[in-house]
Amino acid sequence: MSQNNQLSLLYEGKAKIIYQTEQSDQLIQYFKDEATAFNAEKKAVLSEKGILNNYISAAIMEYLAASGIKTHFIKRLDQRRQFIKRLTIIPIEVIIRNYAAGSLVKRLAFTEGALLTPPICEFCYKNDALKDPLINHDHMIALKIANSAQIAYIKEQALKINQHLINFFAQAGINLIDFKLEFGLDQKQQIILADDISPDSARLWDNQTKQKMDKDRFRQDLGNVVAFYREVAKRLQINFNQSKDEKA
Amino acid sequence: MSQNNQLSLLYEGKAKIIYQTEQSDQLIQYFKDEATAFNAEKKAVLSEKGILNNYISAAIMEYLAASGIKTHFIKRLDQRRQFIKRLTIIPIEVIIRNYAAGSLVKRLAFTEGALLTPPICEFCYKNDALKDPLINHDHMIALKIANSAQIAYIKEQALKINQHLINFFAQAGINLIDFKLEFGLDQKQQIILADDISPDSARLWDNQTKQKMDKDRFRQDLGNVVAFYREVAKRLQINFNQSKDEKA
Repeated sequence: MSQNNQLSLLYEGKAKIIYQTEQSDQLIQYFKDEATAFNAEKKAVLSEKGILNNYISAAIMEYLAASGIKTHFIKRLDQRRQFIKRLTIIPIEVIIRNYAAGSLVKRLAFTEGALLTPPICEFCYKNDALKDPLINHDHMIALKIANSAQIAYIKEQALKINQHLINFFAQAGINLIDFKLEFGLDQKQQIILADDISPDSARLWDNQTKQKMDKDRFRQDLGNVVAFYREVAKRLQINFNQSKDEKA
Repeated sequence: MSQNNQLSLLYEGKAKIIYQTEQSDQLIQYFKDEATAFNAEKKAVLSEKGILNNYISAAIMEYLAASGIKTHFIKRLDQRRQFIKRLTIIPIEVIIRNYAAGSLVKRLAFTEGALLTPPICEFCYKNDALKDPLINHDHMIALKIANSAQIAYIKEQALKINQHLINFFAQAGINLIDFKLEFGLDQKQQIILADDISPDSARLWDNQTKQKMDKDRFRQDLGNVVAFYREVAKRLQINFNQSKDEKA
């Protein structure tokens, strides 16, 4: 596939760039090495992170698609880029938590690592200026973000995805602690999984040592951030060779 | 009724004191003049506030009882005290919002005074150390605060109470902007309305001038706090004479 179909930049986020393509229903998602935390108060460039996240997220999206989940992922294009379907993004971050960590510990005084049965589902309003605040069903209705049926469907999908991902990571000796999802609407108003799933947006702990293998290594200055992302990719048996002929 | 049945202090809050009585299933709720805001960072004594809140809350609880709502209120004892049923308080604050104000403006950038249809229901975790954080259904389950059926019943009751109170205050030329409720369980595990409802816990605006008639006058240094509480009581046609023989 030619690279020439990457057209103008549509949106630049903290860790990704979205480009238009010649096909109006397809976009290119480009993974940067930039890392941010605490609403971008902490910043760094972590060499190779973007490549690893591109491969890891592609592997996850392919696994989910094979499990019957509708995703925006089409195919990986090269080391840092993937083709995705163009969606209208719903401005919520859906967080699924299997074990307590992060804001659950800070805001609600859960013990880090405490098992949550059933898992907790949270919705946050995707709004940098407001710092992505937690919102509930009624807030989403008032903000006209989604209707009740859409909210129920998104929660149901997120919990299904969680079950698939728990199994996916368990095979790699990794506990899925929590993760963030985004969804969008296609032209038929179907709700489709969007964005990416990577160690930037999921907390992943070695299931024996409890070592953190995700962005908390950056947030908490634990070191070896990229080495642990690489270990995640290795355990997921991701084959980096298959893309040689497609490299940018 | 003798005052001698007021026994030891059971709990002292920011604006109220709860005393035990000789009857194990009854308590006395005492209304103080103390006012606090912003998690007790701002404090004052507002002379007469406790008396006004005792009368206003009693009038509201009597109106709700007559409308078929189960409440903990038994009867007003004197200027600052009322008998209530002993409940096991559920540690959530239920907030119903008909118009945007307060944290909805600060956290989610709603325009103050914007009409919310349908009303918004929020649950906050009653926990001073954590500053009463917003929580959702799944947090309440994980914290073992309530089960799903109880959460649904509480929301349903709170929205019913809202309809009654909108009418109650409309007759007094007052818009009910938002208010906070607490619930408790009686010995039969029935969910009963607890706490109090007053200009300390409800935002009340004159429906013509939009003047604030509630604790926001204290929070925002608008002055004449007690004068406006007195105006609320006057418009609700509360009769302060009926209690002369019961005065402490």
